[in-house]
Amino acid sequence: MDYDHVLELDRTDPLAASRAAFDLPEGVIYLDGNSLGALPRHVPGRVAEVIGQQWGRDLIQSWNRHDWISMPARVGDRIARLIGAESGEVVAADSTSVNLMKLLSAALALRPERRTILSDNGNFPNDLYIAQGVAGLLDKEHRLRITDPDQVAEAIDEDVAVIMLTEVDYRSGRRHDMSDLTARAHAAGALVIWDLCHSAGAMDVDLNGSNADMAVGCGYKYLNGGPGAPAFMFVARRLQPVLKPALSGWMGHDQPFAFDLDYRPAAGILRNLAGTPPILGLTALDAALDSFDGVDMTRVRAKSLALGDLFVALARERLACYGLEIITPEAHDVRGSQISLRHPEAYAIIQALIGEGVIGDFRMPDIARFGLVPLYNSFADIWHAIERLEGVMAAGTYRQPRFRERLAVT
Amino acid sequence: MDYDHVLELDRTDPLAASRAAFDLPEGVIYLDGNSLGALPRHVPGRVAEVIGQQWGRDLIQSWNRHDWISMPARVGDRIARLIGAESGEVVAADSTSVNLMKLLSAALALRPERRTILSDNGNFPNDLYIAQGVAGLLDKEHRLRITDPDQVAEAIDEDVAVIMLTEVDYRSGRRHDMSDLTARAHAAGALVIWDLCHSAGAMDVDLNGSNADMAVGCGYKYLNGGPGAPAFMFVARRLQPVLKPALSGWMGHDQPFAFDLDYRPAAGILRNLAGTPPILGLTALDAALDSFDGVDMTRVRAKSLALGDLFVALARERLACYGLEIITPEAHDVRGSQISLRHPEAYAIIQALIGEGVIGDFRMPDIARFGLVPLYNSFADIWHAIERLEGVMAAGTYRQPRFRERLAVT
Repeated sequence: MDYDHVLELDRTDPLAASRAAFDLPEGVIYLDGNSLGALPRHVPGRVAEVIGQQWGRDLIQSWNRHDWISMPARVGDRIARLIGAESGEVVAADSTSVNLMKLLSAALALRPERRTILSDNGNFPNDLYIAQGVAGLLDKEHRLRITDPDQVAEAIDEDVAVIMLTEVDYRSGRRHDMSDLTARAHAAGALVIWDLCHSAGAMDVDLNGSNADMAVGCGYKYLNGGPGAPAFMFVARRLQPVLKPALSGWMGHDQPFAFDLDYRPAAGILRNLAGTPPILGLTALDAALDSFDGVDMTRVRAKSLALGDLFVALARERLACYGLEIITPEAHDVRGSQISLRHPEAYAIIQALIGEGVIGDFRMPDIARFGLVPLYNSFADIWHAIERLEGVMAAGTYRQPRFRERLAVT
Repeated sequence: MDYDHVLELDRTDPLAASRAAFDLPEGVIYLDGNSLGALPRHVPGRVAEVIGQQWGRDLIQSWNRHDWISMPARVGDRIARLIGAESGEVVAADSTSVNLMKLLSAALALRPERRTILSDNGNFPNDLYIAQGVAGLLDKEHRLRITDPDQVAEAIDEDVAVIMLTEVDYRSGRRHDMSDLTARAHAAGALVIWDLCHSAGAMDVDLNGSNADMAVGCGYKYLNGGPGAPAFMFVARRLQPVLKPALSGWMGHDQPFAFDLDYRPAAGILRNLAGTPPILGLTALDAALDSFDGVDMTRVRAKSLALGDLFVALARERLACYGLEIITPEAHDVRGSQISLRHPEAYAIIQALIGEGVIGDFRMPDIARFGLVPLYNSFADIWHAIERLEGVMAAGTYRQPRFRERLAVT
């Protein structure tokens, strides 16, 4: 494995041109797009236009004139194509947390005789917190059951109302089999909510092909919508009429501007909206989605896997001797779009590596995590990242006390 | 009442200089800041900086380097001063709807023996929808009781757990007595959640002086945070330790980045956060709040009332003959910061008036609504608005079919 081979991979990469759609800082190798996606070049101009012209000049009239009011649906439709959903099955709104609360509380009401929410300990903890909150709100008989990721299938029993899983594990990068678990859940009479935070935009998610019920996901990771971007939610068309919103705000009302005193849910996916849409955040996310225009998501997935394969091969060759253990599964069908390494000093190693211009991140307790973003990461990025990481390990740079000082957000 | 007098009011207005902080369109009289506040001049540059430099250059490191992580608290503290709260009692987050859902569900848990949520039919319907959703989530024994606004006090009985009121009626501009109703609620053992959407930024709200429990409010009306800006929520310090979040997301966790599997609420107001903070929206709101720096809120209130007095005097003199009935109470202590007129053709009248460069809005079924924003509306604005409205009525312009065509958002 030499650098010429890596450069050849970049030369023949059908997605190589997409990198130009992003404004990446000079001299930085950014492998943290699974935490905050890089800035798409279309964003600053579009946001400036919406602020200066639409808000500044047209003011309140922009809700009609620039159709602000339908942004959640319009942006949702653009995301739908990336995740195997149809137009009218996705809206962009709120945060992943809030959307999950909405779907989970509504889904539990569809299985009133059942009391178990099933999840796994590889789920993003936030999702478990949301489930604990929803269970606490209800009748005190609901419970959250948490298994190991590989034991979810066998834990599905007749008491499970809803299974709540994140497709790709935020730490290890392990990927669940959406189609298989959905089928097993349905066979047992349960519903499934998929969290696509670490999938959407990084691979060819196929919600309808997997017969999925509901999903949530994040706008600021592989969709590049900016810090704290609006999230999205998917409800399969067949479930939309029966899923009754518990977070029933006016934007989900059948006639928001009739100002009736009684809530009456809108038809379709729109009933899941709550408050006034965040137009600035939606504008950034909308502009960011331009970088997916014309992009075939199977190519995105193929490049993601190829980047990961290169990372694994180089890590095995050059890093294994330093005790950096690859914890991401190598088989393609069970891997997401990141490679994670385990080391007792992972925190300091990541800080030292950032000092060398390679940005990855740390996850408790001992994980160094590297996101692979097919639209802007090159194969050369991987080569240089491994080379600099090798340098940090060989020189023991990470042992310096300054790299052990904990930051507020890690 | 002549124009010279109006100009004199502007010349001696201690807030006159604040208008320069806003980028108002040429030739437009904007009396709809209670629906969408005008663009503060500081906003475009600050948002561009956060997008281009913080997101674009510093990427994920901005959560620490630019302290993005504490924006909900920092912006909340700036709002606190405007509404009579202390630092640490307010956060900016989510939408008004979501914040209301959080507070209402948590507040009901503090009064487990009681089953009534009390509100009034002058409340913004969205708030009633949220209450219906929360009641539906719980044990089916909770009920929402809706009275006339002037019958709230006598409707407070031993079964009322939470009273949920909007201080200023979005249609009529009538203002509730926060202090009195809070005292009555407390005497009966109930809690109160105030909606400050039509108060915050327009008057000297005094939450702690009124011994208020909880409040929510909007970032995009009188706070000028931009379309769909993050909302805010207030929890009195004495209630913070006992109010347990039901929408329990990771940003409200005691240690969000420890990634424990169990939710443990943060101390203080932060426990009420849920998902990742919307940094672009918070940045715009934060920049918008600069226009309140050094501004005495009692002066804001005094000017708001003076603008309203002028509007009422001119409307009585020049509009009454056209059947435009003033429905906003005239007494200062029961009036917010808008004047509303009733007319069977209110919709078409507002559309025709917009054609004349005066922007107000319509509210079902027959209300023409005019927001008065002390920071950027002048007394001359009121004069010209009335003059043009008189012109529309005298010429019957509003009878043209084009002004009756309904827009999606009205």
